Amino acid sequence: MSSVTNSIKAATAERAWEQFHSEENLAKGVSIEAGELLQCFQWGPDFDAIRVQDELADVLTYCLLLADKLGVDPERVVLQKLATTREKYPVDKARGRSTKYDAL
Amino acid sequence: MSSVTNSIKAATAERAWEQFHSEENLAKGVSIEAGELLQCFQWGPDFDAIRVQDELADVLTYCLLLADKLGVDPERVVLQKLATTREKYPVDKARGRSTKYDAL
Amino acid sequence: MSSVTNSIKAATAERAWEQFHSEENLAKGVSIEAGELLQCFQWGPDFDAIRVQDELADVLTYCLLLADKLGVDPERVVLQKLATTREKYPVDKARGRSTKYDAL
Amino acid sequence: MSSVTNSIKAATAERAWEQFHSEENLAKGVSIEAGELLQCFQWGPDFDAIRVQDELADVLTYCLLLADKLGVDPERVVLQKLATTREKYPVDKARGRSTKYDAL
Repeated sequence: MSSVTNSIKAATAERAWEQFHSEENLAKGVSIEAGELLQCFQWGPDFDAIRVQDELADVLTYCLLLADKLGVDPERVVLQKLATTREKYPVDKARGRSTKYDAL
Repeated sequence: MSSVTNSIKAATAERAWEQFHSEENLAKGVSIEAGELLQCFQWGPDFDAIRVQDELADVLTYCLLLADKLGVDPERVVLQKLATTREKYPVDKARGRSTKYDAL
Repeated sequence: MSSVTNSIKAATAERAWEQFHSEENLAKGVSIEAGELLQCFQWGPDFDAIRVQDELADVLTYCLLLADKLGVDPERVVLQKLATTREKYPVDKARGRSTKYDAL
Repeated sequence: MSSVTNSIKAATAERAWEQFHSEENLAKGVSIEAGELLQCFQWGPDFDAIRVQDELADVLTYCLLLADKLGVDPERVVLQKLATTREKYPVDKARGRSTKYDAL
């Protein structure tokens, strides 16, 4: 993912956009684009794959910029969180259930 | 990123959670977690780095699951979108401006 | 607010849109429109008042439709929640602080 | 709705919370609470009515504070927006369709 992040950063630097990319603004960006992604499913489960893919790319772009700004490796934070999830949701208790961990 | 996706999918499969992971539900997941990320910045630019990183990981996890469900490579869709952004925002017009492309 | 809700419901009924307005879809609508409202503040505190007002109206519209669908009075639920907030955030502890109640 | 807004403002003033309530922070509040509302529907259409009502109240509370901060009447902006919607979606074209106006 780091070469993708580098490509995004190059395009950003060329446009002198880093000045807008505070952690807070990037978090807002993630939320705004997540709303556009959700809009693809406003009225139900059917969707336009191209549009979904496009909005997903926008969410991911802001996520990668935020990870970079925080100085963290996006793959590493996902794996760390996955380890926590594995502990919070033991297979024998969580299997086949969408219940939140504190209600398992 | 694909080995990270595989780790998430393994944990998901062990818990028989794929049944909950329709595209629509994953898009809702992205939006919900994006809201929790934004909450780290509810009252301003200061933030708890660990908490932000943790919420970012949740957003990314749903993004990777959604990309996988759609059968697309997350890195590829980001790069494709970046190419579009580069076109929509030519350096000479967009430099140092946060204006939306249709108002440049 | 009930006469406003009635006006929205009349416009909805004329267009046979009730079929799309499950609680879940209305909640998605609230979230999507909240993202558009947030977009007015993507890059900072300055905003276009007309645009903000317009997006706020969209969020409120879905909120009123959802309250109606749930059979609850929006004013009453807000006042009930306010009573809870008053208890969770006693004036002497919460005054001048944005800290969450469980950390006060 | 204005007496409800007044009750919220009184509780806010007692706690000296107005300092946190910039338009931008209130818009973030709407988005964050909308995410919590959506979470009630994370895995499908079934929901806990009390929880939904509670989260809806939070969204509405921030909406009313934002309307007040903007100096607009929430009922009036909703009705204004409804007039626009009626025009954009003529009954004969929009009836029974969830299509966006620019694709009707």
